[in-house]
Amino acid sequence: MSLQRPNILRMRGYSFGEQPSSKLVTKLNTNENPYPPSPQVAEALASIDTSILNRYPNPMANAFRETAACLHNLHVDNIIPTNGGDELLRLIVTTYVDPTETVATTAPAYSLYPVLAATQNCNFIEVPLTTSWNLPENLGTLLNKNKVKAFFLINPHAPTGQLFSSEQIERVASEFDGLLVIDEAYVDFVDPMQQHNCVPLIDRHENLIILRTMSKGYSLAGLRFGYGLACADLIAPLANKTRDSYNTDSIAQILATAALKSKAYSEGTWQKIRQSRQRLALGLQNLGISCSSSEANFLLCTVDHPIQINAQTLYEKLKKENIFVRYFEEPLLQNKIRITVGSDDENKRLLSLMRTLIDP
Amino acid sequence: MSLQRPNILRMRGYSFGEQPSSKLVTKLNTNENPYPPSPQVAEALASIDTSILNRYPNPMANAFRETAACLHNLHVDNIIPTNGGDELLRLIVTTYVDPTETVATTAPAYSLYPVLAATQNCNFIEVPLTTSWNLPENLGTLLNKNKVKAFFLINPHAPTGQLFSSEQIERVASEFDGLLVIDEAYVDFVDPMQQHNCVPLIDRHENLIILRTMSKGYSLAGLRFGYGLACADLIAPLANKTRDSYNTDSIAQILATAALKSKAYSEGTWQKIRQSRQRLALGLQNLGISCSSSEANFLLCTVDHPIQINAQTLYEKLKKENIFVRYFEEPLLQNKIRITVGSDDENKRLLSLMRTLIDP
Repeated sequence: MSLQRPNILRMRGYSFGEQPSSKLVTKLNTNENPYPPSPQVAEALASIDTSILNRYPNPMANAFRETAACLHNLHVDNIIPTNGGDELLRLIVTTYVDPTETVATTAPAYSLYPVLAATQNCNFIEVPLTTSWNLPENLGTLLNKNKVKAFFLINPHAPTGQLFSSEQIERVASEFDGLLVIDEAYVDFVDPMQQHNCVPLIDRHENLIILRTMSKGYSLAGLRFGYGLACADLIAPLANKTRDSYNTDSIAQILATAALKSKAYSEGTWQKIRQSRQRLALGLQNLGISCSSSEANFLLCTVDHPIQINAQTLYEKLKKENIFVRYFEEPLLQNKIRITVGSDDENKRLLSLMRTLIDP
Repeated sequence: MSLQRPNILRMRGYSFGEQPSSKLVTKLNTNENPYPPSPQVAEALASIDTSILNRYPNPMANAFRETAACLHNLHVDNIIPTNGGDELLRLIVTTYVDPTETVATTAPAYSLYPVLAATQNCNFIEVPLTTSWNLPENLGTLLNKNKVKAFFLINPHAPTGQLFSSEQIERVASEFDGLLVIDEAYVDFVDPMQQHNCVPLIDRHENLIILRTMSKGYSLAGLRFGYGLACADLIAPLANKTRDSYNTDSIAQILATAALKSKAYSEGTWQKIRQSRQRLALGLQNLGISCSSSEANFLLCTVDHPIQINAQTLYEKLKKENIFVRYFEEPLLQNKIRITVGSDDENKRLLSLMRTLIDP
């Protein structure tokens, strides 16, 4: 007989994107930044003396916290550094959602959310987006009616790339009685012309927590570093009660801090990625593949009439040729693939292979 | 009204040892190894090109897993790498202990265990050690009678330093119906003359999981790297369901692997620490302070008659002079301080200051 809890025995784990180690693979499947982290990160790494490692790290990554506080014009008490953004999502469920309560997100959404709900053995519901991937008008009311305790909203949305405005977010925060989690994993790729900024909302809404990650915008997926932004009362129990005492390591703290301090370099990569995104969308359109408009570093593509090949087959054929994109086995996305915006070279390789696969 | 779960609202977080950043502090309070990690760790760090960091790490730290499997003569499926040993402890509770069930440990023990139980909102009981810090004779039966689901036993024991034999461990594993977690955070410091080795027990006991950490023995507290050893069926749900998908980062994986591969260097530090432990115990004894015999890298010292100063005051006075040791505010340990074995220089500094404080 298994010793596992019944809910754990029943559940399936998160199914993450493939991480092939081969250098031959063009990797457009897990939304990584195609460019290396900033030169200041390399300098910071070179300056680390391993003789510091026998000591525990600073428990709250205070140097990082101070740098992030300064960047976002907040107090350190508004910030919790975490071992990747995923740790923050888990901590939020652990701290704020009882097994008797309900977690909700949109359909579609980041497929980790239902896994976190299953682990906590709490209820989980999905609120469908509109046909144009928008939020339902009465979202806050709807969530209250369903007694939702925490709502996870990824913005820009994944896998659609859709950006919800800060006004929309604020309306949900005002109406909703539970905790609103805005997962801003991809926010760095939003066009600055949009002047999108939800951070000031945390001052006005005590039920709002924003997730940021160094994985995408700062080219540090390998480092596992994210952080949460919220009013001090929401941050405190995450920081002082449910977090593993030393959740981020000394080296990651130093490199993540260096990356934030050299944000201008990363902004340059965001600009390049936005330009490549536009070219890639155009290239796909020329092949007869439409993409929803995206403010993230990926495109959700519809593989449908008149294309003769279906999305899953296209994904598999690309994979056979060492180009990895993402296919999701779920009804809402069955005619779609998600393509991470790579470097222009990578995108060209993809387009050229797709042309031969679609129109052989 | 707080959004926190009622159990989180009620609980207190883990109270970790102070981590002063000042170089002036002699730090004998959190059981770190006084020596730096192996030169191969420094070489591995120097060889890292930060341009790998834009990609996600290997999800299961496979290179580390293979090295650890080889070291322990096990299969990779018997090993789960974690973000410090603390992550493994948390994952065990998340995966194996339902809120309706009971976690138990000894009294005294590592004070994180009750925090993990409170977070999971499960029951928690303590089994007192005997007056000579030994395990009660009928431990397995006692745990079954109390319907304990998971028993955490730190071995060598903290904060006493007591080593329970593999025969004692095996007897508990045989008798106990729940999950037996042997926290071997300090096992590297056990005298090799003891020929102590519990790892082979995992082949015979499907309810046994062993924790190892790189923090103490391998001088890598700052890196956050630990791992679990158990039969594949116990490891699988931790690895595939409840673990954050990318729980260890690329750099930590590389350095931890290098540290395991250069184990001989660390063994040298363990030998030095054992010798220093003996000298420190003798020095304390000469001051009228008795220590229980320890197979770990710390000594639990009794500050009692004829010493005129009490344990807490001694801790505070040492701290004022920049020597940090550990004092626990709990009844069983009120006349005790725990001293990490430092380098001989650090230990001498401590003894010399204690002499002036005790006998002014």
